[in-house]
Amino acid sequence: MTQQRSSRRIAVLLEYDGTAYRGSQYQENGPSIQAELEASIQQLTGANVRAAFAGRTDAGVHALGQVAAFDIESNLRPDEFVRGLNHFLPDDIAVRSARDAEPSFDPRRDARNRVYRYAIETGPVRSPLRRNRAWHVGRPLDVPAMAGAAQALEGTHDFAAFAGAYEGSTRRTLRRCEVRDNGCGRIALTMEAEAFLPHQVRRTAGPLVEVGLGRMILDDVVALRDGAAPSSAQPAAPACGLYLVRVEYGEFAFDAPAEVGNGQDG
Amino acid sequence: MTQQRSSRRIAVLLEYDGTAYRGSQYQENGPSIQAELEASIQQLTGANVRAAFAGRTDAGVHALGQVAAFDIESNLRPDEFVRGLNHFLPDDIAVRSARDAEPSFDPRRDARNRVYRYAIETGPVRSPLRRNRAWHVGRPLDVPAMAGAAQALEGTHDFAAFAGAYEGSTRRTLRRCEVRDNGCGRIALTMEAEAFLPHQVRRTAGPLVEVGLGRMILDDVVALRDGAAPSSAQPAAPACGLYLVRVEYGEFAFDAPAEVGNGQDG
Repeated sequence: MTQQRSSRRIAVLLEYDGTAYRGSQYQENGPSIQAELEASIQQLTGANVRAAFAGRTDAGVHALGQVAAFDIESNLRPDEFVRGLNHFLPDDIAVRSARDAEPSFDPRRDARNRVYRYAIETGPVRSPLRRNRAWHVGRPLDVPAMAGAAQALEGTHDFAAFAGAYEGSTRRTLRRCEVRDNGCGRIALTMEAEAFLPHQVRRTAGPLVEVGLGRMILDDVVALRDGAAPSSAQPAAPACGLYLVRVEYGEFAFDAPAEVGNGQDG
Repeated sequence: MTQQRSSRRIAVLLEYDGTAYRGSQYQENGPSIQAELEASIQQLTGANVRAAFAGRTDAGVHALGQVAAFDIESNLRPDEFVRGLNHFLPDDIAVRSARDAEPSFDPRRDARNRVYRYAIETGPVRSPLRRNRAWHVGRPLDVPAMAGAAQALEGTHDFAAFAGAYEGSTRRTLRRCEVRDNGCGRIALTMEAEAFLPHQVRRTAGPLVEVGLGRMILDDVVALRDGAAPSSAQPAAPACGLYLVRVEYGEFAFDAPAEVGNGQDG
């Protein structure tokens, strides 16, 4: 007699180094986080499932706390999913935590808050140990000026200028847009919102660095905020500095250790 | 008429990610930091030179502040060496600073103090963004016990038990042997001495983790210190957690930015 396996929706918290991937979502022509996760699920359980992700991350973008969910018939405990999937996943992807979710749980639609961080380095020489982990600007930046321009973006605005191609409303509410000097030539931009537009963090980090270099001023950023043409905020900062730090839900939360990855503090 | 080029000894401060290399010194069968540096010098200046290093680092060991020196006939300014060599070096090696040195300068023999750091992570899940950057022990460690055992190693002792194969005196003076909890599951061991024995830091980190896990106690470490058999300290911690942080000389110093690499703070 075979033991009956229960049908469940499992949610996992993922950390990954996005350098080697075309992005989080399945891609025909290259490796993706989704394809690796689905392959590890198949190796662990034999089941061929589709995983849904909280947020799409582009090629080269990292995550400390991406959330994915999939349906599966299995009696494995959550900690067995963590150990088992990590055994099969490549060393640049890991499941940090797993838990059962409601059958209706949708990691993308149910998200109430997303936290992204963008890492910038100002030191004159590129750092080999931080390559693919931060945007090496390589010049001193006026952090107070950047912080002031960042703050002007908080609140509810039409962020069309800060978005890549997008059909639909470009009105969003930025709960937090904060620039911090972490010392040793490291600067971090942290942005929080229920939802972001495509490329919004990178197209915000780029102009803020222009402000830091003295090539743009607060008024230029305010003008972008107040009705400039779509996608007119330039440049888009490179993917390697961007981290999806955390996705927050209503009552749903993971039991997970503190962030230990490379997203810089603050 | 060709401009006369002056003969100089140039010293460079190096940062590297040692993951892809067989070690700092030239190896017949694989890539080395030395071979890459010498190749970049040849590409920049046309000269085929030999570079001498302050310390040998093993395969997979990293450096934030390795020092190398070479003789060359060139009129390039130090900042031109920095930019030029970094242009030709692979992205996992960089020259952080360069300067003229006395013709007698010997980066190995003239060193008065060396600082190594060993990075340990205790979180239950391996971190993709810290892979090849720390030893993932994956279990909680008793940091005060480790710190106490580390302190017992400070001072002048016969460190034969903590060394790999070595001919010659194994008496050394450890100026500093300190274990610190940097939070978020990160623990750093910092060791300072004028000179170290082969594998000494890794063969110290291994037993200290045993103490942290409760498998060894202070008395076991003291026994290793006080005349145990050569190489009897076990295990040797893996190479990926080790960083050569800094080499100090008498009056000779680099004009260099603060450490920004991945050697953890403290």
